[in-house]
Amino acid sequence: MTNESGFVHIVEEGPREGFQIEPGPISTAAKIELIDALSQTGVRTIQAASFVSPKAVPGWADAEAVVAGIRPGGGVTYGANWLNNRGMERALAHADILTCRGAIALSASEAFSLRNLRRDRSGQMEMMTGMVRDHLAAGVPIDRLVVMAAFGCNFAGEIAVDRVMATIGDGFTVAADGGTVVNRIILADSMGWCSPGRVAALVSAVRGRWPDMELQLHLHDTRGLGIASAHEGLRMGVRHFDSAVAGLGGCPFAGQPGAPGNIATEELVLLCHTMGLETGIDLDAMIDAARLAERIVGHPLPSALLRSGSMRPLGATCN
Amino acid sequence: MTNESGFVHIVEEGPREGFQIEPGPISTAAKIELIDALSQTGVRTIQAASFVSPKAVPGWADAEAVVAGIRPGGGVTYGANWLNNRGMERALAHADILTCRGAIALSASEAFSLRNLRRDRSGQMEMMTGMVRDHLAAGVPIDRLVVMAAFGCNFAGEIAVDRVMATIGDGFTVAADGGTVVNRIILADSMGWCSPGRVAALVSAVRGRWPDMELQLHLHDTRGLGIASAHEGLRMGVRHFDSAVAGLGGCPFAGQPGAPGNIATEELVLLCHTMGLETGIDLDAMIDAARLAERIVGHPLPSALLRSGSMRPLGATCN
Repeated sequence: MTNESGFVHIVEEGPREGFQIEPGPISTAAKIELIDALSQTGVRTIQAASFVSPKAVPGWADAEAVVAGIRPGGGVTYGANWLNNRGMERALAHADILTCRGAIALSASEAFSLRNLRRDRSGQMEMMTGMVRDHLAAGVPIDRLVVMAAFGCNFAGEIAVDRVMATIGDGFTVAADGGTVVNRIILADSMGWCSPGRVAALVSAVRGRWPDMELQLHLHDTRGLGIASAHEGLRMGVRHFDSAVAGLGGCPFAGQPGAPGNIATEELVLLCHTMGLETGIDLDAMIDAARLAERIVGHPLPSALLRSGSMRPLGATCN
Repeated sequence: MTNESGFVHIVEEGPREGFQIEPGPISTAAKIELIDALSQTGVRTIQAASFVSPKAVPGWADAEAVVAGIRPGGGVTYGANWLNNRGMERALAHADILTCRGAIALSASEAFSLRNLRRDRSGQMEMMTGMVRDHLAAGVPIDRLVVMAAFGCNFAGEIAVDRVMATIGDGFTVAADGGTVVNRIILADSMGWCSPGRVAALVSAVRGRWPDMELQLHLHDTRGLGIASAHEGLRMGVRHFDSAVAGLGGCPFAGQPGAPGNIATEELVLLCHTMGLETGIDLDAMIDAARLAERIVGHPLPSALLRSGSMRPLGATCN
């Protein structure tokens, strides 16, 4: 569902996903520098921080200091991520900068749930129902459903489309029991199992059952098919994507250290522009931000485009 | 044009393209080891060597020794590359192992021709006509036309589809003047300008004009859109592709040191298999060959899949 068919909404996940998985340490100032550079690219939404346990995710122990240091600009909406009420409260303390919004998250893979979240499906649903109530009580909207492992699972293998559909149904049950309504489904490729065919099958199935629901794709390039999968989504009219500058990020629970993470924002932007789709993003500014990200983390990042540069003739001044 | 719509023919270009661009030095034994590993993957054609000037391309100074050391197997056809009669003669001395076959090569970009080949179009055509005659005189078939820079050029920018069509027409003129017939057109993305839309435009245009001509795509992942572009070609029924294990290679004349080269064979194979298309290639064996290639060159190669591994549940024994 979209009413702006020529515009692709990109949520920049690089800071949140990247700094949680990087071995670091990365200074607070460097994190702020990257977020501020991203704010100047034209991207509309940046996931700027993760309010999670500093013990579990030391890379985000300084979430408060990072958010306090951001110089808001460029009409950007800054979001954040959390997993429990303590995290939500920490984020709400920065509601002057952050747009606080919750999400119901369920894994389509039971094996991934047990390993990563240490809960089975009914345990996940119970916890999420409580979270919905707590969000509403705190005045924080919670209207999105994230289906983790929607494309496949490193521990369970292929996940049947029917399992994803059942997981979405469970998410709607959580929403109803908690007292809210889902208006967007985010299909998340937590472990890099996406392929164009899988995107086509999932998008068709979800659209067929819930034609009015907004769809968002969160794809990983872990096995090299991320951009081809995004292309399939774009062809089918999906207009909401998550991505990460330079291909930062990835899933810390996937069991594949060194494998690429999220699709790179700059490659997604180039793809959209070659399709005649607008993103509002200045490609060269995003490539510069990708190069900054690589300098900050201090090792090569997966994006091809950050090394090659945009399609601009070398030594020429055209645009 | 194809009569095996479910089978994708992949030409493995890793040794030829990779060892010409790697700073090296890489031992003759290591080159042979990689070629022999590739022979065991199920790939049908391997471009095994480049008979070019040892001064210009020191990485292939040992082409004779490499070819002599190959242990032919797996029903593989071994090919080689050369740019002049001296190279053809060197290859022909190994016709016991190599299947020698020439190609007419023209650049769609005049800027690339002048810079890389030091000839304008008419100079290119004159040289190629002479090469066709020399091949035929030596009994070497020459029936393929390679259009370099068919997707765009780092020095000239976008290349109009009409320019590519005119270049193909010039290639047919060369063939006729030299006394041969072209039966396959290889559209080569020498500098990483491919996109799904560009593939669609070129394939449609060429098919519309020459519906009986076999089409082959030689795509680079320099800007991250290589696999998405291959997907578009596959969707349109193209069944012949060049690729390079681990994403070895790239164009030494593109002016982008460090940028990725060819699309990675293992990612192309995974893509084909997710589409239900056969390649004859054992994906895990190709990923192992990619890891061997990385050990041989001694630095990270661009393929994502060589780091993540195939879609096989971790710790499980299923296939």
